[in-house]
Amino acid sequence: MVNVAILGFGTVGSGVAEVLAKNAEHIDQKVETPVRLKYILDVRDFPGSPFEDKVVHDFSVIENDPTVEIVVETIGGATVALDYTRRALSAGKSVVSSNKELVAEHGYELLQLAAQKGVSYLFEASVGGGIPILRPLSQCLAANELTEVCGILNGTTNYILTRMIRSGLTFEAALKEAQANGYAEKDPTADVEGRDACRKICILAAIAFGRHIYPQQVPTEGISGVTLADVAYAESCNRKIKLLGRAVKEPDGRVCAYVAPHLVDAEAPLAGVEDVFNAIMVKGDAIGDVMFYGRGAGKLPTASAVVADVMDAARHIQSRKHIEWGPGGEDVTVSPDQFPFRWYVRAAGSAAAVRTAFPGAALLSRPGAPAEEVAFLTAGAMTRAQLDAALGDLRPLSVFRVLA
Amino acid sequence: MVNVAILGFGTVGSGVAEVLAKNAEHIDQKVETPVRLKYILDVRDFPGSPFEDKVVHDFSVIENDPTVEIVVETIGGATVALDYTRRALSAGKSVVSSNKELVAEHGYELLQLAAQKGVSYLFEASVGGGIPILRPLSQCLAANELTEVCGILNGTTNYILTRMIRSGLTFEAALKEAQANGYAEKDPTADVEGRDACRKICILAAIAFGRHIYPQQVPTEGISGVTLADVAYAESCNRKIKLLGRAVKEPDGRVCAYVAPHLVDAEAPLAGVEDVFNAIMVKGDAIGDVMFYGRGAGKLPTASAVVADVMDAARHIQSRKHIEWGPGGEDVTVSPDQFPFRWYVRAAGSAAAVRTAFPGAALLSRPGAPAEEVAFLTAGAMTRAQLDAALGDLRPLSVFRVLA
Repeated sequence: MVNVAILGFGTVGSGVAEVLAKNAEHIDQKVETPVRLKYILDVRDFPGSPFEDKVVHDFSVIENDPTVEIVVETIGGATVALDYTRRALSAGKSVVSSNKELVAEHGYELLQLAAQKGVSYLFEASVGGGIPILRPLSQCLAANELTEVCGILNGTTNYILTRMIRSGLTFEAALKEAQANGYAEKDPTADVEGRDACRKICILAAIAFGRHIYPQQVPTEGISGVTLADVAYAESCNRKIKLLGRAVKEPDGRVCAYVAPHLVDAEAPLAGVEDVFNAIMVKGDAIGDVMFYGRGAGKLPTASAVVADVMDAARHIQSRKHIEWGPGGEDVTVSPDQFPFRWYVRAAGSAAAVRTAFPGAALLSRPGAPAEEVAFLTAGAMTRAQLDAALGDLRPLSVFRVLA
Repeated sequence: MVNVAILGFGTVGSGVAEVLAKNAEHIDQKVETPVRLKYILDVRDFPGSPFEDKVVHDFSVIENDPTVEIVVETIGGATVALDYTRRALSAGKSVVSSNKELVAEHGYELLQLAAQKGVSYLFEASVGGGIPILRPLSQCLAANELTEVCGILNGTTNYILTRMIRSGLTFEAALKEAQANGYAEKDPTADVEGRDACRKICILAAIAFGRHIYPQQVPTEGISGVTLADVAYAESCNRKIKLLGRAVKEPDGRVCAYVAPHLVDAEAPLAGVEDVFNAIMVKGDAIGDVMFYGRGAGKLPTASAVVADVMDAARHIQSRKHIEWGPGGEDVTVSPDQFPFRWYVRAAGSAAAVRTAFPGAALLSRPGAPAEEVAFLTAGAMTRAQLDAALGDLRPLSVFRVLA
């Protein structure tokens, strides 16, 4: 028998309780011992809920109960969740989390603590919702030297971009619709400005490349600067605008990680990922490109990833599961400003100015463009500084990378 | 130190040797002990090869060497490979295989033997080449009651269909091109007639649903009956023809598994899988749809999956890895003939006859169709027997299912 406590009975936490209850027979059979929910920690009571009798308000009840071997942290944020996670691990309990902010900020420290205590710290649900990605990255692709991880990591922004591309909604209208459908929060900043995608690429990069990468080391640009004009220009050259989190291992071993909108070839697998779906592309020296696709968020997909981790921890109570990476540091990352990219530029200026400043650039057109607007793709790759220097009198309105 | 022997130094076997050598440092670090190739069993010698000194011709050398703990079986087929796999497992060695025929025919027996001996039998590379799919199925999706596995499981046929769809090549011309490019074998029967896909859906279904399913229980139809006329009709209703292996868990617990060409909505993720790429879609009650995509074949992708299994076996020498399923039997499967599907039909006959026989059917058209040819999608779902009975004077030329 393995007892479980859930911290935080919100969307994901209540989904975990549901999946544990609904699939109990199947889960017990796979784990080869009963897995039972013993406590739910929340500030609220849940009168009338089938889980009412499990609710406690004091974390120390869980912390001091030696029969609780697995703690599920679905609180979110990096304050209370950090405190409880440290205390649970210190008390010799394995912790399963869906909290990308906590893992991106404190993953190294918490994994070290778990290793010291001989317990597991697992967080498959923190990236890609229910898509199995962290375990395949660390296990199934283990025989590869990985060179790049790149993906559509945030369902909210992908939904907004899909609505702009397919239905011609403005960014503001698409955001409102996403909020009305429950795909975007009232305060959509963390999604829209790319911070959520940034945390996820930090976690992916740490697993792929073996060192902790902090969100503040990852230049992050969201989608609030993407206009319908940009969408139309992208379509004119058979591309779609997608918000990508990317982490590339450079030949010197450093990691170039960033989050930004990109123009993606419409035939590429990532371009076909629409609405709230996520997809993560992994490149390895032996395997080539592999893509993982599915619902990146939502109560039950995320809960099923949490429960899979709970089952894994339960099967390995005696021999903790092995995820780890090295410490972070300034030597781990390198700025994308150091590297050349191919660029899409929309600017105020003339086609003649573009031809002079960017020989060989592909000029783009769209119906109804103002006379003073030009857009183009650079002929080759250049650094952002080289691009800015070449612009001259052209006043940039939108500047996005083109995914090679 | 863990010693490895490779049986069969063909494409995959030599790829395994290369990946083990090239990524040795990385592999040893992840496994936390050196992983060394000690023997290569082949009937040939390889003078001048860097692996020349490891070649042996007698399996008993490997069988009787107690320092060999992991045997890689990349022989293929179910005769010699079966004998050596039984003997290796019986001798207490873990076996890693890329041999889908052997697993599909004898997986249950070999997994039982491995369990008795306390060793691992792993075969991630047998399905989807380098795509991590078997481990995610058995582990990451463990918290789900799985309801369906469906995929493009054979790169050769997907390449041929892609060339027919995109470039208008006939089946025969596309097959010749595939052979010239090394994507199809001289005798392409196993690929073209769907037998390769059949073996793979057997393995996927066994892991997803827990009982062995034998290839002879899976009705299998290949792509040699797909014509350019069918491709054109599919395009006229915004669909693409794809060869799918499907296994659906019916409410009574039995598995309906089959391999056949399907019309797939052009916007669906599976439709975007082109050339030699494979993709496997998994449906679970909590997770919804998840898709795994990548190169389904090829020396290095497949070798990297084998090496990942070798690493996993090496890490678990003391505690064997847990894959298992129950025995097969006639009670495990149910024929797709029992179930209704929506159908695409191309027939010799008249539109009037279609309207009479299939009220509400969607008639399709294509440029240059002969006067006596009709094609349509049935309005609703019906069993194959119901379809055949309704056809009356219409003489069917192509009959494919429409993926809902």
